[in-house]
Amino acid sequence: MKLNKNMNILIVGLGLLGGSYAESLKKQGYRVSAITRSQSSVDFALSKGIIDYGTTEVEPELLRNADLVVFALYPHIFTEWITQNQHLLKSGAVITDVTGVKGCIVGKIQDILRHDVEFIAAHPMAGREVCGVQNSTDEIFKGANYIVVPTEKNTKSAIELCRDLGEKLGFHQVSELSVEMHDKMIAFLSQLTHCIAVSLMCADNTPGLEYYTGDSFRDLTRIAKINDEMWSELFLYNKDALLTEMDKFKASFDELYEKIKTGDRDGMRQMMRTSTERRKSFDKHI
Amino acid sequence: MKLNKNMNILIVGLGLLGGSYAESLKKQGYRVSAITRSQSSVDFALSKGIIDYGTTEVEPELLRNADLVVFALYPHIFTEWITQNQHLLKSGAVITDVTGVKGCIVGKIQDILRHDVEFIAAHPMAGREVCGVQNSTDEIFKGANYIVVPTEKNTKSAIELCRDLGEKLGFHQVSELSVEMHDKMIAFLSQLTHCIAVSLMCADNTPGLEYYTGDSFRDLTRIAKINDEMWSELFLYNKDALLTEMDKFKASFDELYEKIKTGDRDGMRQMMRTSTERRKSFDKHI
Repeated sequence: MKLNKNMNILIVGLGLLGGSYAESLKKQGYRVSAITRSQSSVDFALSKGIIDYGTTEVEPELLRNADLVVFALYPHIFTEWITQNQHLLKSGAVITDVTGVKGCIVGKIQDILRHDVEFIAAHPMAGREVCGVQNSTDEIFKGANYIVVPTEKNTKSAIELCRDLGEKLGFHQVSELSVEMHDKMIAFLSQLTHCIAVSLMCADNTPGLEYYTGDSFRDLTRIAKINDEMWSELFLYNKDALLTEMDKFKASFDELYEKIKTGDRDGMRQMMRTSTERRKSFDKHI
Repeated sequence: MKLNKNMNILIVGLGLLGGSYAESLKKQGYRVSAITRSQSSVDFALSKGIIDYGTTEVEPELLRNADLVVFALYPHIFTEWITQNQHLLKSGAVITDVTGVKGCIVGKIQDILRHDVEFIAAHPMAGREVCGVQNSTDEIFKGANYIVVPTEKNTKSAIELCRDLGEKLGFHQVSELSVEMHDKMIAFLSQLTHCIAVSLMCADNTPGLEYYTGDSFRDLTRIAKINDEMWSELFLYNKDALLTEMDKFKASFDELYEKIKTGDRDGMRQMMRTSTERRKSFDKHI
């Protein structure tokens, strides 16, 4: 199954990501509705023309007609929402999400979900250090990665639809990972990096540092501007995998520390050459 | 004293930074010569029109005529160069540098230098993850910081000239720090960030990570592509200050680790709010 223009697409949660999905899909001529908490987000999205219809209420008719529902909510709100409102979903509907961790959510949602509705999990690896629909833009998908996270409960058809959504949104790379591998990858690539940036920003508060900074510090701490409500929830939902990756980083940092302390220049240079070589494959393709 | 068009400016070491200085100054109509190791760098700089004259030899006449000499060399080469060639410098010449650490170099150079030549140290906080004059561009100075590092041996006149150089090059902010404060700041803002990027890149080598990465990991590891010869030297020249800052970072990282481990969500959120607040003042002004 692929996306088609006869489908009714519903976005639940019109924040940065939900809004960016809406903008991209609407531009391409899809029918997009949205349910979100605040009227000002609805008004903004309508004025910008990125949704056809928006509401702050869970309107039964909107759900009854939705073929594809994208949930762009905090994990705990997503679960609550499904519990309370799933009886309103259309039989045969496919639902997907944008949640940054999967172990805590995918099994739970698939367990409680009606059997005539299918949940296929996805993680769009795109974001900005600002939030809200006011900052949404489909530019964030360019050159970025999109991960579909199927389980044995998913059908080929839903996986195909979810992959097609990622491709239509304009992601550079669409791939698939198991729930466990996804959470391990994300712990290292995303959560650990946020832990590092926050820790670094908290490590020193000498006045005037900003007058002497270079781009390396700026780039490293860009994500130190962080949505504390969302990220603390994501960290705790993926605690074991995150602590494991934090341990690995600490071991590597300690190794470099010892080489500097003992003046082991060859050892330092070897680590630097390894990092230079490995980093090459991570360049963005735009 | 300020820069003026009658001055002969000589750049020693035509790499990324030396080349970028040359490009900026030449564009503004200054007379710029260069001495550098490789003929291909001279040829490139001449063909690009960013120097008036270039050579791979230490030509006595070039030195005898130079009013301002900018050294863009590795620290140990800089010291050797001065020892071997300072007798050729013009009486009254001002020399400056671009070295990333100061404690190891400023006192040493000022001690061995002839009394009729003045060394005023500077650190342009600009760079790229690529090197060589072929990659030089005065764009790197835009929005960036430039630090003058005077000692009690420096005259007001030379400090003024060095500040004027930074302003003419187009730096956003020109400031002054003592040698000790400079090295402490740089240990935190620049060296520690490179240590973190290298350690992170060395911490995990799971195949395929690049397919699942987002911008946070890319930004954090941009500087993991590192010139191992130069940075290992800079780290060791600033070892004590760097180890102190690494310790501070480790303490902060460990604090966050404990909060995650014990599920102290309020404590995590407090650190995130602190980092978000502090990071605001580091945005680049372009």
